[in-house]
Amino acid sequence: MEKKKTISVMVENHPGVLARIAGLFSSRNFNIESLAVGETEDPATSRMTIVATGDELVLEQIIKQLNKLIDTLKVIDMSKEDYVERELALIKINTEDKNLTHLMHIIHIFKGKVLDTATDSLIVEITGNDDRINSFTQLVQTFGIKEMVRTGIVALTRSKKQKE
Amino acid sequence: MEKKKTISVMVENHPGVLARIAGLFSSRNFNIESLAVGETEDPATSRMTIVATGDELVLEQIIKQLNKLIDTLKVIDMSKEDYVERELALIKINTEDKNLTHLMHIIHIFKGKVLDTATDSLIVEITGNDDRINSFTQLVQTFGIKEMVRTGIVALTRSKKQKE
Repeated sequence: MEKKKTISVMVENHPGVLARIAGLFSSRNFNIESLAVGETEDPATSRMTIVATGDELVLEQIIKQLNKLIDTLKVIDMSKEDYVERELALIKINTEDKNLTHLMHIIHIFKGKVLDTATDSLIVEITGNDDRINSFTQLVQTFGIKEMVRTGIVALTRSKKQKE
Repeated sequence: MEKKKTISVMVENHPGVLARIAGLFSSRNFNIESLAVGETEDPATSRMTIVATGDELVLEQIIKQLNKLIDTLKVIDMSKEDYVERELALIKINTEDKNLTHLMHIIHIFKGKVLDTATDSLIVEITGNDDRINSFTQLVQTFGIKEMVRTGIVALTRSKKQKE
């Protein structure tokens, strides 16, 4: 069964780790939809957040193999956890001959930040889950999106609400 | 000379692209500090933002080879452009027996958003450039960072301020 999964992988910071992990997915013809690799609370480790869609059994195998890699410290299948997810997008929107008041309303509603303004365009920063960013891009589509870059999803598990 | 560079690579969405690009860096012993791969304004393409530090001449060679890959549509060396950059971090901060008023002040100053609260911790979303996120994590260090995930930098070139 095809399923979209968010997977967190904590790895040691060595050259080649990323290529090996990306290779694990591509050798099984899995397309990674988004990937974010950044620093963690420990300078010697990186945390990768991978969103991939595909057959669930194959994905289970990939997770098992991720666990076997020498540089892997921990793998979390977020779909089995209670978690929060966020993504950041920078969007360059066309502003030539456009109703800017309407555009500013949309940006305000989505709590966007205008990072740069030029004669014919502006750059907005938006954060949210996948749906929220998609809603924003659909709404500003009529103005014209000149360029967009998205970080890909990052996720953290929620803590327990009460002490056990 | 060692230099930190931010590189944007627009690629076609095919399985294996990511592994090939990561391989280009690791085969030259280049450690990628951060990598963000996400959707763009065109559903058939992804945009990768890579931050890597190393010898400038070797990096120039890597950029040339990136340009030769069949799935590469465009490579931009951001250090040669005027650009904005942003990153998102989710940080789980320890709140047990702590001065929460002080913590809430810090979060407010950094325009952070509290996404989840539990008995012993909370999850904050922070955006900014690398320095800004580092300043925040240093300030909340005394509370104790239980977990952190960062998206890695994404960047867009600024538009011209005046018509030519």
